[in-house]
Amino acid sequence: MTALAPQLRLATRRNGRRDGELMLVDRSARKWVPAGADAPTLQALLDDWAPLAAQVDEVVRRLDATGWAGALPFDAGQCMAPLPRAYQWADASVYRNHARLIYQWRREPIPAGYEEEPLVYQGGSDVMLGPQDDIVAVDEAHQIDLEAEIAVITGDVPLGASLEEARQAIALVVLLNDVSLRGLIPGELAKGFGFYQSKPATSFAPIAVTPAALGPAWRDGMPDLRVRIAINGEWFGEPHANTEAIFNFPQIIRHLARTRSLAAGSIVGAGTISNASPSAGSACITEARVRQILAGTPESALRPYLRDGDRVRIEAIVDEQDAVFGAIDQRVSVRPRH
Amino acid sequence: MTALAPQLRLATRRNGRRDGELMLVDRSARKWVPAGADAPTLQALLDDWAPLAAQVDEVVRRLDATGWAGALPFDAGQCMAPLPRAYQWADASVYRNHARLIYQWRREPIPAGYEEEPLVYQGGSDVMLGPQDDIVAVDEAHQIDLEAEIAVITGDVPLGASLEEARQAIALVVLLNDVSLRGLIPGELAKGFGFYQSKPATSFAPIAVTPAALGPAWRDGMPDLRVRIAINGEWFGEPHANTEAIFNFPQIIRHLARTRSLAAGSIVGAGTISNASPSAGSACITEARVRQILAGTPESALRPYLRDGDRVRIEAIVDEQDAVFGAIDQRVSVRPRH
Repeated sequence: MTALAPQLRLATRRNGRRDGELMLVDRSARKWVPAGADAPTLQALLDDWAPLAAQVDEVVRRLDATGWAGALPFDAGQCMAPLPRAYQWADASVYRNHARLIYQWRREPIPAGYEEEPLVYQGGSDVMLGPQDDIVAVDEAHQIDLEAEIAVITGDVPLGASLEEARQAIALVVLLNDVSLRGLIPGELAKGFGFYQSKPATSFAPIAVTPAALGPAWRDGMPDLRVRIAINGEWFGEPHANTEAIFNFPQIIRHLARTRSLAAGSIVGAGTISNASPSAGSACITEARVRQILAGTPESALRPYLRDGDRVRIEAIVDEQDAVFGAIDQRVSVRPRH
Repeated sequence: MTALAPQLRLATRRNGRRDGELMLVDRSARKWVPAGADAPTLQALLDDWAPLAAQVDEVVRRLDATGWAGALPFDAGQCMAPLPRAYQWADASVYRNHARLIYQWRREPIPAGYEEEPLVYQGGSDVMLGPQDDIVAVDEAHQIDLEAEIAVITGDVPLGASLEEARQAIALVVLLNDVSLRGLIPGELAKGFGFYQSKPATSFAPIAVTPAALGPAWRDGMPDLRVRIAINGEWFGEPHANTEAIFNFPQIIRHLARTRSLAAGSIVGAGTISNASPSAGSACITEARVRQILAGTPESALRPYLRDGDRVRIEAIVDEQDAVFGAIDQRVSVRPRH
């Protein structure tokens, strides 16, 4: 069955409509063709995934055979998020080292049972940003942080799904920036109701790929690759996404489906990627700051949070090939509320 | 402008598609006609609300003038949730008495700032249940509770919306049952990440109405009506939704939009309706139990949570007229995980 699994690379073109236009992208991420009338948008494809993905896979095989004759040049600047609006965004926190550093920052113990079952939160999914959309914030004092993450997009997941059903429900893999306003997190979490204002819109790399299209870079329900982060053109981190994770995606999805079914198009994240080795750098600024604090750096010399005009670049690296998901390359725009 | 505000009563018919078919419902909730090709679903109507709502309002005025000739009989059993899947469900907790009783149950103080800014959580919106769909749970030990609430459905809300922009963004008003698994709440909230497994799918009364269609039953950005709850045919509560609330809907929406824009079709709730007077009864079982505990009732005699086969009925009452939103009338179905 794995041999027949569709190898798809999909993106969404900004065309003035809320859900954009679904694009089929070639392996080099240089060419694209419209997915066509049967799957005008990514949500439409996910709504009827098994037959439509097989149909689209056929189209892609024919294009591969003809060198994508007649295809158009692919430009990430044309892209919205793969799902510009989604019915669900649920994010876990499965990287042990991230929890270790973040709870030091919060001066709280790591939540009980952190290694027994996935720690998850329900995120906002009504507005998802494209790879080159600005990160808009209203105040630098909110402490604007990036969080580089891998997520999957599911088909329908039945209530009480088994690990195998959860695995089979994984349709696509995506790369994202789960922007956080650190200054607002302690106040919100102290109330117990989770994040809201502290999690503004999430941003996505342009290309969503099927696990089969990742080949050996998808292993045991996890992305087997590194994610490289740069801020203002400077290397900031390059943690590996499949080492030091406590749970994999099928385990996260099974947890989410324990009392609820999940609808097609649910985006499920694994949380900020993090490696214990300082040489891997960080996938969020807060981690870097905690590392500095633990090393004795005074407050005044800590790495600053994002400021107006800063640029964030995030891409996944597989064997130094071209970035598989394409790059997130965003500017921070701080526009005080009028 | 208020004089021209559309007076619409809308429902969604189950037609085998994920988003159903948008229905225009008459004032008596006895007749309906299809909304037609320009607004095939409620989300399509919300995506282009101002012009389409005006267009649909014209259709309704013509139908009113002709006695809805040719309309079909309305049956809530045909209905899905008005939005069977939504891009956002954010719920506040604005009833002072609910917080007072619930935090006694939790044996914790009411969160700091509870009366200064709305306490909100991000809910799951990928699966919304219709008025007669079963409440499916996997275990009675999860302590299945109902929560009767009013919510609004918004158009697009800009980041940093003013109170007036928030008010203008309110498109529709709905009645819902925010089902909670009380047994799972303390564990989830202790982790600080909010609700996930403890909030399974939310259920909706069939008819969504514009504020203008509510007439005097919509006042100062709040529903001015009572909500009646019955369990297994017995009266359980009838609290008033516009007394004892700390914040109104424009205030809740302004809070939600402080750091994020909201997309058209966002559902925003005010939380479990609650009145301090015991004669109003309760809109959730936990409140009734806390009242019993405060009155000295022993644990063994407390009102039980919902059990397999129980029926929950929720409807809004305006001057003892017909229920404006139609009724939620659900059965609890406990199906242990295989």
